[in-house]
Amino acid sequence: MVKALIFDVFGTVVDWRGSLIEDLTNFGAARGIAADWPALVDAWRGAYVPSMDRVRHGARAWATLDVLHRESLERLIGEFGITGLDEAARQEITRFWHRLRPWPDAVPGLARLKRRFVIATLSNGNVALLVNLAKHAGLPWDMVFGGDLFRHYKPDPETYLGACRLLDLPPAEVMMVAAHNGDLAAAREHGLATGFFPRPNEHAPGQARDQHAEQDWDVVARDIEDLATRLGA
Amino acid sequence: MVKALIFDVFGTVVDWRGSLIEDLTNFGAARGIAADWPALVDAWRGAYVPSMDRVRHGARAWATLDVLHRESLERLIGEFGITGLDEAARQEITRFWHRLRPWPDAVPGLARLKRRFVIATLSNGNVALLVNLAKHAGLPWDMVFGGDLFRHYKPDPETYLGACRLLDLPPAEVMMVAAHNGDLAAAREHGLATGFFPRPNEHAPGQARDQHAEQDWDVVARDIEDLATRLGA
Repeated sequence: MVKALIFDVFGTVVDWRGSLIEDLTNFGAARGIAADWPALVDAWRGAYVPSMDRVRHGARAWATLDVLHRESLERLIGEFGITGLDEAARQEITRFWHRLRPWPDAVPGLARLKRRFVIATLSNGNVALLVNLAKHAGLPWDMVFGGDLFRHYKPDPETYLGACRLLDLPPAEVMMVAAHNGDLAAAREHGLATGFFPRPNEHAPGQARDQHAEQDWDVVARDIEDLATRLGA
Repeated sequence: MVKALIFDVFGTVVDWRGSLIEDLTNFGAARGIAADWPALVDAWRGAYVPSMDRVRHGARAWATLDVLHRESLERLIGEFGITGLDEAARQEITRFWHRLRPWPDAVPGLARLKRRFVIATLSNGNVALLVNLAKHAGLPWDMVFGGDLFRHYKPDPETYLGACRLLDLPPAEVMMVAAHNGDLAAAREHGLATGFFPRPNEHAPGQARDQHAEQDWDVVARDIEDLATRLGA
Protein backbone atom coordinates (compact mmCIF):
# COMPACT_ATOMS: atom_id res chain seq x y z
CA MET A 1 0.00 0.00 0.00
CA VAL A 2 2.91 2.35 0.74
CA LYS A 3 4.17 3.95 -2.48
CA ALA A 4 6.64 6.52 -1.20
CA LEU A 5 9.14 6.65 1.65
CA ILE A 6 10.15 10.04 3.03
CA PHE A 7 13.30 10.08 5.15
CA ASP A 8 14.50 12.20 7.96
CA VAL A 9 18.12 12.96 7.07
CA PHE A 10 20.26 14.24 9.97
CA GLY A 11 21.01 11.23 12.13
CA THR A 12 18.74 8.89 10.20
CA VAL A 13 20.66 8.85 6.90
CA VAL A 14 23.87 10.76 7.66
CA ASP A 15 26.24 10.81 10.62
CA TRP A 16 26.23 14.53 11.35
CA ARG A 17 28.23 14.24 14.57
CA GLY A 18 31.09 12.09 13.30
CA SER A 19 31.30 14.10 10.08
CA LEU A 20 31.35 17.51 11.73
CA ILE A 21 33.88 16.48 14.37
CA GLU A 22 36.16 15.06 11.68
CA ASP A 23 35.84 18.09 9.41
CA LEU A 24 36.32 20.61 12.21
CA THR A 25 39.27 18.72 13.67
CA ASN A 26 40.95 18.64 10.26
CA PHE A 27 40.08 22.28 9.70
CA GLY A 28 41.50 23.32 13.08
CA ALA A 29 44.69 21.33 12.52
CA ALA A 30 45.22 22.86 9.06
CA ARG A 31 44.61 26.40 10.34
CA GLY A 32 46.38 26.00 13.67
CA ILE A 33 43.18 26.76 15.59
CA ALA A 34 42.73 24.84 18.81
CA ALA A 35 39.29 24.21 20.28
CA ASP A 36 37.22 21.45 21.85
CA TRP A 37 35.64 20.60 18.52
CA PRO A 38 33.48 17.69 19.75
CA ALA A 39 32.00 19.94 22.41
CA LEU A 40 31.37 22.66 19.82
CA VAL A 41 29.60 20.15 17.58
CA ASP A 42 27.38 18.94 20.39
CA ALA A 43 26.56 22.50 21.39
CA TRP A 44 25.84 23.38 17.76
CA ARG A 45 23.44 20.48 17.51
CA GLY A 46 22.01 21.54 20.86
CA ALA A 47 21.06 24.88 19.34
CA TYR A 48 19.23 23.21 16.46
CA VAL A 49 15.80 22.57 17.95
CA PRO A 50 15.58 25.84 19.93
CA SER A 51 16.54 27.84 16.83
CA MET A 52 13.82 26.16 14.75
CA ASP A 53 11.31 26.49 17.56
CA ARG A 54 11.70 30.26 17.49
CA VAL A 55 10.59 30.14 13.85
CA ARG A 56 7.88 27.54 14.51
CA HIS A 57 6.35 29.58 17.31
CA GLY A 58 6.46 32.87 15.46
CA ALA A 59 9.20 34.52 17.52
CA ARG A 60 11.03 35.21 14.28
CA ALA A 61 10.31 35.21 10.55
CA TRP A 62 11.13 32.28 8.31
CA ALA A 63 14.84 31.51 8.04
CA THR A 64 16.50 28.51 6.42
CA LEU A 65 18.51 25.99 8.39
CA ASP A 66 21.70 27.34 6.76
CA VAL A 67 20.90 30.73 8.29
CA LEU A 68 20.05 29.24 11.69
CA HIS A 69 23.26 27.16 11.67
CA ARG A 70 25.32 30.24 10.89
CA GLU A 71 23.69 32.29 13.65
CA SER A 72 24.20 29.52 16.21
CA LEU A 73 27.81 29.14 15.12
CA GLU A 74 28.42 32.86 15.64
CA ARG A 75 27.20 32.64 19.21
CA LEU A 76 29.20 29.48 19.95
CA ILE A 77 32.43 30.91 18.54
CA GLY A 78 32.09 33.60 21.17
CA GLU A 79 31.13 31.24 23.96
CA PHE A 80 33.99 28.86 23.16
CA GLY A 81 36.44 31.75 22.83
CA ILE A 82 37.61 30.61 19.38
CA THR A 83 39.67 33.16 17.50
CA GLY A 84 41.07 33.44 14.00
CA LEU A 85 37.86 32.65 12.08
CA ASP A 86 37.21 35.22 9.36
CA GLU A 87 34.03 35.46 7.27
CA ALA A 88 35.23 32.91 4.72
CA ALA A 89 36.11 30.44 7.46
CA ARG A 90 32.70 30.84 9.09
CA GLN A 91 31.00 30.22 5.76
CA GLU A 92 33.16 27.18 5.16
CA ILE A 93 32.38 25.71 8.56
CA THR A 94 28.64 26.27 8.12
CA ARG A 95 28.85 24.45 4.80
CA PHE A 96 30.27 21.38 6.54
CA TRP A 97 26.58 20.50 7.00
CA HIS A 98 26.38 20.17 3.19
CA ARG A 99 28.84 17.28 3.12
CA LEU A 100 27.90 15.04 6.01
CA ARG A 101 28.72 11.38 5.44
CA PRO A 102 26.07 8.69 5.15
CA TRP A 103 25.86 5.76 7.54
CA PRO A 104 27.31 2.68 5.80
CA ASP A 105 23.90 1.11 5.10
CA ALA A 106 22.35 4.29 3.64
CA VAL A 107 23.49 4.27 0.01
CA PRO A 108 23.03 0.54 -0.64
CA GLY A 109 19.71 0.50 1.25
CA LEU A 110 18.32 3.52 -0.59
CA ALA A 111 19.39 2.08 -3.95
CA ARG A 112 17.33 -1.03 -3.19
CA LEU A 113 14.32 0.92 -1.95
CA LYS A 114 14.42 3.24 -4.97
CA ARG A 115 13.69 0.32 -7.29
CA ARG A 116 10.35 -0.30 -5.60
CA PHE A 117 9.31 3.01 -4.03
CA VAL A 118 9.56 6.73 -4.55
CA ILE A 119 12.21 7.79 -2.05
CA ALA A 120 12.54 11.35 -0.84
CA THR A 121 13.88 13.41 2.01
CA LEU A 122 11.63 15.12 4.50
CA SER A 123 14.17 17.13 6.40
CA ASN A 124 14.41 20.42 8.21
CA GLY A 125 17.43 21.16 6.04
CA ASN A 126 16.92 23.59 3.18
CA VAL A 127 16.83 22.33 -0.38
CA ALA A 128 20.30 23.63 -1.29
CA LEU A 129 21.86 21.92 1.72
CA LEU A 130 20.04 18.65 1.00
CA VAL A 131 20.86 18.67 -2.72
CA ASN A 132 24.54 19.32 -2.03
CA LEU A 133 24.52 16.64 0.67
CA ALA A 134 22.91 14.08 -1.64
CA LYS A 135 25.40 14.85 -4.38
CA HIS A 136 28.35 14.58 -2.05
CA ALA A 137 27.15 11.39 -0.37
CA GLY A 138 25.63 9.71 -3.44
CA LEU A 139 22.11 9.55 -1.99
CA PRO A 140 19.81 8.62 -4.89
CA TRP A 141 16.67 10.57 -3.94
CA ASP A 142 13.75 10.81 -6.34
CA MET A 143 12.75 14.06 -4.67
CA VAL A 144 14.13 16.43 -2.05
CA PHE A 145 11.66 17.97 0.40
CA GLY A 146 13.26 20.56 2.66
CA GLY A 147 11.88 22.96 5.20
CA ASP A 148 12.07 25.91 2.82
CA LEU A 149 9.56 24.29 0.43
CA PHE A 150 6.94 24.61 3.15
CA ARG A 151 8.42 27.45 5.18
CA HIS A 152 7.76 25.21 8.16
CA TYR A 153 9.90 22.93 10.27
CA LYS A 154 9.01 19.47 11.49
CA PRO A 155 6.99 18.59 13.49
CA ASP A 156 4.64 21.20 11.98
CA PRO A 157 1.89 19.35 10.06
CA GLU A 158 2.55 21.45 6.95
CA THR A 159 5.74 19.45 6.36
CA TYR A 160 4.32 15.91 6.50
CA LEU A 161 1.08 16.82 4.73
CA GLY A 162 2.88 19.09 2.27
CA ALA A 163 5.08 16.23 1.10
CA CYS A 164 2.03 13.98 0.65
CA ARG A 165 0.23 16.69 -1.30
CA LEU A 166 3.21 17.27 -3.61
CA LEU A 167 3.53 13.52 -4.17
CA ASP A 168 -0.25 13.42 -4.83
CA LEU A 169 -0.59 10.51 -2.43
CA PRO A 170 -2.86 10.05 0.59
CA PRO A 171 -0.85 10.01 3.85
CA ALA A 172 -1.51 6.28 4.36
CA GLU A 173 0.49 5.59 1.19
CA VAL A 174 3.51 7.55 2.42
CA MET A 175 5.87 6.18 5.06
CA MET A 176 7.90 8.52 7.23
CA VAL A 177 11.23 6.88 8.03
CA ALA A 178 13.27 8.18 10.95
CA ALA A 179 15.57 7.14 13.75
CA HIS A 180 13.61 9.52 15.99
CA ASN A 181 10.42 8.46 17.75
CA GLY A 182 9.17 12.03 17.99
CA ASP A 183 9.29 12.57 14.24
CA LEU A 184 7.32 9.37 13.69
CA ALA A 185 4.76 10.25 16.35
CA ALA A 186 3.99 13.50 14.52
CA ALA A 187 3.83 11.75 11.15
CA ARG A 188 1.47 9.09 12.52
CA GLU A 189 -0.75 11.79 13.98
CA HIS A 190 -1.31 13.00 10.42
CA GLY A 191 -2.03 9.56 9.00
CA LEU A 192 1.34 8.61 7.54
CA ALA A 193 2.81 5.12 7.82
CA THR A 194 5.95 4.90 9.96
CA GLY A 195 9.31 3.15 9.75
CA PHE A 196 11.93 3.18 12.50
CA PHE A 197 15.44 1.96 13.10
CA PRO A 198 17.80 3.14 15.84
CA ARG A 199 21.00 5.07 15.35
CA PRO A 200 22.47 4.30 18.76
CA ASN A 201 25.60 6.37 18.16
CA GLU A 202 24.05 9.44 16.58
CA HIS A 203 24.66 11.59 19.63
CA ALA A 204 27.51 11.83 22.11
CA PRO A 205 28.56 8.61 23.91
CA GLY A 206 25.94 7.58 26.43
CA GLN A 207 23.03 8.58 24.18
CA ALA A 208 19.82 7.62 25.98
CA ARG A 209 17.16 8.74 23.55
CA ASP A 210 15.80 6.82 20.58
CA GLN A 211 17.58 3.57 21.34
CA HIS A 212 14.35 1.67 20.77
CA ALA A 213 10.96 1.96 19.11
CA GLU A 214 8.64 3.67 21.57
CA GLN A 215 5.44 2.87 19.69
CA ASP A 216 4.33 0.01 17.47
CA TRP A 217 5.64 1.64 14.31
CA ASP A 218 4.53 -0.05 11.10
CA VAL A 219 8.05 -1.28 10.42
CA VAL A 220 10.90 -1.53 12.91
CA ALA A 221 14.23 -2.40 11.33
CA ARG A 222 17.92 -2.47 12.18
CA ASP A 223 18.98 0.03 9.52
CA ILE A 224 18.11 1.10 5.95
CA GLU A 225 19.27 -2.14 4.36
CA ASP A 226 17.16 -4.13 6.79
CA LEU A 227 14.24 -1.78 6.07
CA ALA A 228 14.62 -2.61 2.38
CA THR A 229 14.54 -6.32 3.19
CA ARG A 230 11.45 -5.97 5.37
CA LEU A 231 9.68 -3.99 2.63
CA GLY A 232 10.55 -6.59 0.01
CA ALA A 233 12.91 -4.31 -1.91
CA MET B 1 30.64 29.89 -13.33
CA VAL B 2 27.40 27.96 -13.89
CA LYS B 3 26.82 25.50 -11.05
CA ALA B 4 23.32 24.22 -11.77
CA LEU B 5 21.34 23.43 -14.90
CA ILE B 6 17.55 23.56 -14.77
CA PHE B 7 15.74 21.84 -17.61
CA ASP B 8 12.45 22.36 -19.29
CA VAL B 9 10.99 18.86 -19.58
CA PHE B 10 8.11 18.52 -22.08
CA GLY B 11 9.68 18.58 -25.52
CA THR B 12 13.17 19.37 -24.24
CA VAL B 13 13.84 16.12 -22.36
CA VAL B 14 10.89 13.89 -23.26
CA ASP B 15 8.97 13.25 -26.49
CA TRP B 16 5.47 14.00 -25.28
CA ARG B 17 3.88 13.76 -28.74
CA GLY B 18 5.32 10.44 -29.82
CA SER B 19 4.74 8.92 -26.39
CA LEU B 20 1.12 10.04 -26.08
CA ILE B 21 0.23 8.98 -29.62
CA GLU B 22 1.77 5.56 -29.03
CA ASP B 23 0.09 5.08 -25.65
CA LEU B 24 -3.31 6.26 -26.85
CA THR B 25 -3.16 4.19 -30.03
CA ASN B 26 -2.33 1.08 -27.99
CA PHE B 27 -5.00 1.98 -25.46
CA GLY B 28 -7.62 2.47 -28.18
CA ALA B 29 -6.71 -0.80 -29.89
CA ALA B 30 -6.88 -2.74 -26.61
CA ARG B 31 -10.28 -1.24 -25.70
CA GLY B 32 -11.72 -1.22 -29.20
CA ILE B 33 -12.12 2.57 -29.15
CA ALA B 34 -11.51 4.30 -32.46
CA ALA B 35 -10.41 7.93 -32.62
CA ASP B 36 -7.97 10.19 -34.43
CA TRP B 37 -5.47 9.88 -31.59
CA PRO B 38 -2.71 12.03 -33.15
CA ALA B 39 -5.22 14.84 -33.63
CA LEU B 40 -6.42 14.44 -30.05
CA VAL B 41 -2.83 14.64 -28.79
CA ASP B 42 -2.14 17.80 -30.77
CA ALA B 43 -5.37 19.38 -29.56
CA TRP B 44 -4.53 18.35 -25.98
CA ARG B 45 -1.16 20.02 -26.27
CA GLY B 46 -2.89 22.99 -27.88
CA ALA B 47 -4.95 23.44 -24.72
CA TYR B 48 -1.82 23.48 -22.54
CA VAL B 49 -0.77 27.11 -22.74
CA PRO B 50 -4.29 28.60 -22.67
CA SER B 51 -5.16 26.50 -19.61
CA MET B 52 -2.07 27.70 -17.75
CA ASP B 53 -2.63 31.27 -18.86
CA ARG B 54 -6.01 31.28 -17.14
CA VAL B 55 -4.18 30.51 -13.91
CA ARG B 56 -1.32 32.89 -14.65
CA HIS B 57 -3.66 35.79 -15.32
CA GLY B 58 -5.87 35.18 -12.31
CA ALA B 59 -8.95 33.95 -14.18
CA ARG B 60 -8.89 30.87 -11.97
CA ALA B 61 -7.27 29.71 -8.75
CA TRP B 62 -4.11 27.61 -8.71
CA ALA B 63 -4.52 24.17 -10.24
CA THR B 64 -1.81 21.62 -11.02
CA LEU B 65 -1.00 20.54 -14.55
CA ASP B 66 -2.55 17.13 -13.83
CA VAL B 67 -5.82 18.91 -13.11
CA LEU B 68 -5.54 21.13 -16.20
CA HIS B 69 -4.72 18.11 -18.37
CA ARG B 70 -7.75 16.25 -17.08
CA GLU B 71 -10.07 19.22 -17.67
CA SER B 72 -8.78 19.71 -21.21
CA LEU B 73 -9.18 15.99 -21.88
CA GLU B 74 -12.81 16.11 -20.75
CA ARG B 75 -13.56 18.86 -23.21
CA LEU B 76 -11.74 17.13 -26.07
CA ILE B 77 -13.45 13.79 -25.48
CA GLY B 78 -16.68 15.63 -26.15
CA GLU B 79 -15.38 17.56 -29.13
CA PHE B 80 -13.91 14.43 -30.72
CA GLY B 81 -17.06 12.44 -29.97
CA ILE B 82 -15.13 9.66 -28.26
CA THR B 83 -17.31 7.23 -26.31
CA GLY B 84 -16.68 4.37 -23.92
CA LEU B 85 -14.25 6.15 -21.56
CA ASP B 86 -15.25 5.69 -17.94
CA GLU B 87 -13.68 7.48 -14.99
CA ALA B 88 -10.87 4.94 -14.63
CA ALA B 89 -10.03 5.23 -18.33
CA ARG B 90 -9.92 9.02 -18.14
CA GLN B 91 -7.60 8.85 -15.14
CA GLU B 92 -5.39 6.34 -16.93
CA ILE B 93 -5.14 8.50 -20.05
CA THR B 94 -4.30 11.61 -18.02
CA ARG B 95 -1.53 9.65 -16.32
CA PHE B 96 0.05 8.91 -19.71
CA TRP B 97 1.81 12.25 -19.10
CA HIS B 98 3.57 10.57 -16.17
CA ARG B 99 5.35 8.07 -18.40
CA LEU B 100 6.51 10.05 -21.43
CA ARG B 101 9.65 8.66 -23.03
CA PRO B 102 12.94 10.56 -23.08
CA TRP B 103 14.65 11.57 -26.30
CA PRO B 104 17.55 9.14 -26.93
CA ASP B 105 20.25 11.63 -25.87
CA ALA B 106 18.53 12.59 -22.60
CA VAL B 107 19.54 9.88 -20.15
CA PRO B 108 23.20 9.57 -21.25
CA GLY B 109 23.55 13.36 -21.52
CA LEU B 110 22.05 14.01 -18.09
CA ALA B 111 24.23 11.31 -16.53
CA ARG B 112 27.30 13.13 -17.83
CA LEU B 113 26.07 16.57 -16.75
CA LYS B 114 25.17 15.28 -13.27
CA ARG B 115 28.81 14.49 -12.56
CA ARG B 116 29.75 18.14 -12.93
CA PHE B 117 26.61 20.17 -12.20
CA VAL B 118 23.48 20.11 -10.10
CA ILE B 119 20.79 19.09 -12.59
CA ALA B 120 17.12 19.77 -11.96
CA THR B 121 13.83 20.17 -13.75
CA LEU B 122 12.11 23.52 -14.07
CA SER B 123 8.84 22.42 -15.56
CA ASN B 124 5.22 23.42 -15.52
CA GLY B 125 4.45 19.84 -14.58
CA ASN B 126 3.56 19.18 -10.96
CA VAL B 127 6.04 17.42 -8.71
CA ALA B 128 4.16 14.09 -8.66
CA LEU B 129 4.03 14.01 -12.46
CA LEU B 130 7.72 14.89 -12.76
CA VAL B 131 8.85 12.40 -10.11
CA ASN B 132 6.87 9.59 -11.74
CA LEU B 133 8.18 10.61 -15.14
CA ALA B 134 11.79 10.64 -13.94
CA LYS B 135 11.39 7.24 -12.33
CA HIS B 136 9.81 5.75 -15.42
CA ALA B 137 12.33 7.25 -17.83
CA GLY B 138 15.42 6.95 -15.63
CA LEU B 139 16.13 10.69 -15.53
CA PRO B 140 18.75 11.20 -12.79
CA TRP B 141 17.67 14.60 -11.44
CA ASP B 142 19.29 16.02 -8.32
CA MET B 143 16.13 18.05 -7.71
CA VAL B 144 12.67 18.34 -9.19
CA PHE B 145 11.17 21.82 -9.46
CA GLY B 146 7.56 21.79 -10.63
CA GLY B 147 4.93 24.48 -10.97
CA ASP B 148 3.20 23.48 -7.74
CA LEU B 149 6.29 24.35 -5.67
CA PHE B 150 5.80 27.98 -6.68
CA ARG B 151 2.11 27.94 -7.50
CA HIS B 152 3.15 29.71 -10.69
CA TYR B 153 3.67 28.63 -14.25
CA LYS B 154 6.51 29.62 -16.54
CA PRO B 155 7.16 32.22 -17.78
CA ASP B 156 6.19 33.84 -14.46
CA PRO B 157 9.38 35.13 -12.79
CA GLU B 158 8.51 33.29 -9.55
CA THR B 159 9.48 30.02 -11.25
CA TYR B 160 12.96 30.95 -12.51
CA LEU B 161 13.84 33.00 -9.46
CA GLY B 162 12.24 30.51 -7.11
CA ALA B 163 14.48 27.72 -8.38
CA CYS B 164 17.57 29.93 -7.94
CA ARG B 165 16.49 30.85 -4.41
CA LEU B 166 15.93 27.22 -3.43
CA LEU B 167 19.31 26.27 -4.90
CA ASP B 168 20.82 29.22 -3.00
CA LEU B 169 22.57 30.38 -6.17
CA PRO B 170 22.54 33.74 -7.92
CA PRO B 171 20.72 33.55 -11.28
CA ALA B 172 23.97 33.96 -13.21
CA GLU B 173 25.15 30.63 -11.78
CA VAL B 174 22.03 28.80 -12.98
CA MET B 175 21.50 27.86 -16.62
CA MET B 176 17.99 27.39 -17.97
CA VAL B 177 18.08 24.69 -20.65
CA ALA B 178 15.21 24.44 -23.11
CA ALA B 179 14.34 23.66 -26.70
CA HIS B 180 12.05 26.70 -26.59
CA ASN B 181 13.31 30.20 -27.29
CA GLY B 182 10.48 31.80 -25.31
CA ASP B 183 11.40 29.94 -22.13
CA LEU B 184 15.01 31.06 -22.47
CA ALA B 185 14.05 34.66 -23.20
CA ALA B 186 12.13 34.80 -19.91
CA ALA B 187 14.98 33.14 -18.00
CA ARG B 188 17.52 35.57 -19.47
CA GLU B 189 15.32 38.50 -18.50
CA HIS B 190 15.78 37.41 -14.89
CA GLY B 191 19.53 36.98 -15.15
CA LEU B 192 19.86 33.25 -15.71
CA ALA B 193 22.33 31.74 -18.16
CA THR B 194 20.73 30.00 -21.14
CA GLY B 195 21.29 26.78 -23.06
CA PHE B 196 19.42 25.81 -26.23
CA PHE B 197 19.13 22.89 -28.60
CA PRO B 198 16.35 22.29 -31.09
CA ARG B 199 13.83 19.47 -31.00
CA PRO B 200 12.77 19.74 -34.62
CA ASN B 201 10.20 16.94 -34.34
CA GLU B 202 8.62 17.86 -31.02
CA HIS B 203 5.41 19.03 -32.65
CA ALA B 204 3.36 17.77 -35.58
CA PRO B 205 5.16 17.37 -38.93
CA GLY B 206 5.91 20.77 -40.44
CA GLN B 207 6.82 22.31 -37.07
CA ALA B 208 7.98 25.85 -37.74
CA ARG B 209 8.76 27.14 -34.28
CA ASP B 210 11.98 26.68 -32.33
CA GLN B 211 13.97 25.15 -35.17
CA HIS B 212 16.86 27.51 -34.41
CA ALA B 213 18.28 29.69 -31.68
CA GLU B 214 16.59 33.09 -31.93
CA GLN B 215 19.00 34.89 -29.63
CA ASP B 216 22.68 34.48 -28.82
CA TRP B 217 22.03 31.99 -26.03
CA ASP B 218 25.07 31.25 -23.87
CA VAL B 219 25.29 27.71 -25.23
CA VAL B 220 23.69 26.41 -28.41
CA ALA B 221 23.99 22.65 -28.83
CA ARG B 222 22.56 19.82 -30.93
CA ASP B 223 21.07 17.90 -28.01
CA ILE B 224 21.76 17.07 -24.35
CA GLU B 225 24.82 14.95 -25.07
CA ASP B 226 26.29 17.75 -27.16
CA LEU B 227 25.44 20.18 -24.38
CA ALA B 228 27.42 18.00 -21.98
CA THR B 229 30.38 18.06 -24.35
CA ARG B 230 30.22 21.84 -24.75
CA LEU B 231 30.08 22.28 -20.97
CA GLY B 232 33.08 20.01 -20.45
CA ALA B 233 31.08 17.27 -18.75
